[in-house]
Amino acid sequence: MTRADVARYAGVSTAVVSYVLNGGPKNVAPLTRERVLDAVRVLGYRPNAAARALSMGSADMFGLLVHDNRSPFFAELCHALDQATADAGRSLLIVNSDRTQVPTADQIRDLASRQIAGLIIADVLTSGEQSVVHSLGIPAVVMGQFGETDDLHSVGVDFARGAREACEHLIGHGYRDIAFAGSAARYDERERGWREALSAARLPLGPLLHTPFGYQGGYDAAVELMRLPSLPRAVLAASDQIGIGMLAAFGERGVRVPDDIAVVSFDGTIAADFVWPRLTTAVQPLEQMAEVAVQLLTDPTASRHHRALFTHLRVRESCGCAAQHG
Amino acid sequence: MTRADVARYAGVSTAVVSYVLNGGPKNVAPLTRERVLDAVRVLGYRPNAAARALSMGSADMFGLLVHDNRSPFFAELCHALDQATADAGRSLLIVNSDRTQVPTADQIRDLASRQIAGLIIADVLTSGEQSVVHSLGIPAVVMGQFGETDDLHSVGVDFARGAREACEHLIGHGYRDIAFAGSAARYDERERGWREALSAARLPLGPLLHTPFGYQGGYDAAVELMRLPSLPRAVLAASDQIGIGMLAAFGERGVRVPDDIAVVSFDGTIAADFVWPRLTTAVQPLEQMAEVAVQLLTDPTASRHHRALFTHLRVRESCGCAAQHG
Repeated sequence: MTRADVARYAGVSTAVVSYVLNGGPKNVAPLTRERVLDAVRVLGYRPNAAARALSMGSADMFGLLVHDNRSPFFAELCHALDQATADAGRSLLIVNSDRTQVPTADQIRDLASRQIAGLIIADVLTSGEQSVVHSLGIPAVVMGQFGETDDLHSVGVDFARGAREACEHLIGHGYRDIAFAGSAARYDERERGWREALSAARLPLGPLLHTPFGYQGGYDAAVELMRLPSLPRAVLAASDQIGIGMLAAFGERGVRVPDDIAVVSFDGTIAADFVWPRLTTAVQPLEQMAEVAVQLLTDPTASRHHRALFTHLRVRESCGCAAQHG
Repeated sequence: MTRADVARYAGVSTAVVSYVLNGGPKNVAPLTRERVLDAVRVLGYRPNAAARALSMGSADMFGLLVHDNRSPFFAELCHALDQATADAGRSLLIVNSDRTQVPTADQIRDLASRQIAGLIIADVLTSGEQSVVHSLGIPAVVMGQFGETDDLHSVGVDFARGAREACEHLIGHGYRDIAFAGSAARYDERERGWREALSAARLPLGPLLHTPFGYQGGYDAAVELMRLPSLPRAVLAASDQIGIGMLAAFGERGVRVPDDIAVVSFDGTIAADFVWPRLTTAVQPLEQMAEVAVQLLTDPTASRHHRALFTHLRVRESCGCAAQHG
């Protein structure tokens, strides 16, 4: 079924079919337009980007593999990537990688086979999956991970530095007993930053809690802290979601933040600014990260090393700083 | 560049190339595997789903157009749709529709041209966009809107009923002065439910606030409520995000929830359960909505009318009910 079939059925030229389907460049009389749309409907014709991509040997879209788009951080990262790809004249196809039914390697192969011009991976890859990406010979960039990814581009933040800075801020408030709540799933650079800041200030390590990254993980970690013989004076949470879950648990038991325990978190998602007290948090520069990722995908000469951008500490009330409006 | 070229370069049969690229069904010796992967890399070969879809005249994926995946409700809806499509043996390509650079009609055409087997639209379409969808002759379902969408399948909830139920719960607490905070962007069925519940209980309408759907909209609405000569006793928020933004503003000014003002919201997102007090909320049955949408797309005989599922009220503490753990 081709454009010519549509034109023949509607009794117009193929150019007119194009004008109708593309909304221009020339105007088409309403009745003619109706006739073309009828023909498209009756014949079941679909203008075919796949065919176009095949014949042109190129494509205008990037693929994004994201672990769980329900996580506010990854949702905001998706959104920033969507804007950055649009700014570069591309579109973005998003695929979730946390479905148990489909192995991630298959999803990567599938995305690549849809003629994408580049692949963005916001997930932790196994070495097998990395070699799949590598073997596809398609530009790829890994986002939000801790460091080098085996000969692929990667963009993230300096997690250790961001956590150190956050922890130093807590130390600056005069707190001596500072806990950390983060993931045990893999070695967390934020945990290292926390250790380094305490060690540089000659403070003992506070309680260390390993907990999943979501709200429930934060809630559970706070419940654990409240079971200790004495509550630490402050806690560094490895994500805003952990921080928000902690606030909920503290609120429920009447533990006051920041008076009884100060909280600082990591990510800088929108939600961190709409809790009370608002969370002081190490903000990841998502727009900048997305721009760098798109640049790397569109620049064939870019060298393959890890780009670690800097977080900045957004100071609100949860750390003990006075309320700052706006 | 074909599979045969790869086979020739690697000195193996095309079947072996297939085994390596598909991870089976037969095993390939590690060295042979390396040779094939080298050939794939050197030749820049990509197994091509677009070509496969063209030759087979069918495809295994659905497209999802979503307005803003940063909204927790839509992020959770995306996730539910992803699971439901995977359960039906399909995959889901997600595209955001809130990019100013690309008209939504073009995005719909683009998705359709990528050989998708069905289109899910989690957005409000203009009548022009609806006619584009219609003209493409591809199965399509509109999700989360208020009612019929011009000869397309649609799945949503009974918003008015859900809001009525939520408002009746507040009335059951003995509250007489009940405000509503929702969007003015289009007529909100939740507002109608609020009006109906108050009218049935012979109560006067409380303050009516029109505000955007995000956290900031809720924050601003709460600030407005606190400027009134007297604070209403309760408020029904049209989304969890509005409710959470309100809690933040009340917390900041020392207004106690539910003692000074009770809050009930709408959606039932995860975040509503990780604030303090936790939000009593009208839960949209996302899994069920997603299953119905996928069924409609895969059943050519399904009739085109609006499916409105029921919400259920998840009772927590923000309405004044005693704390219920778990």
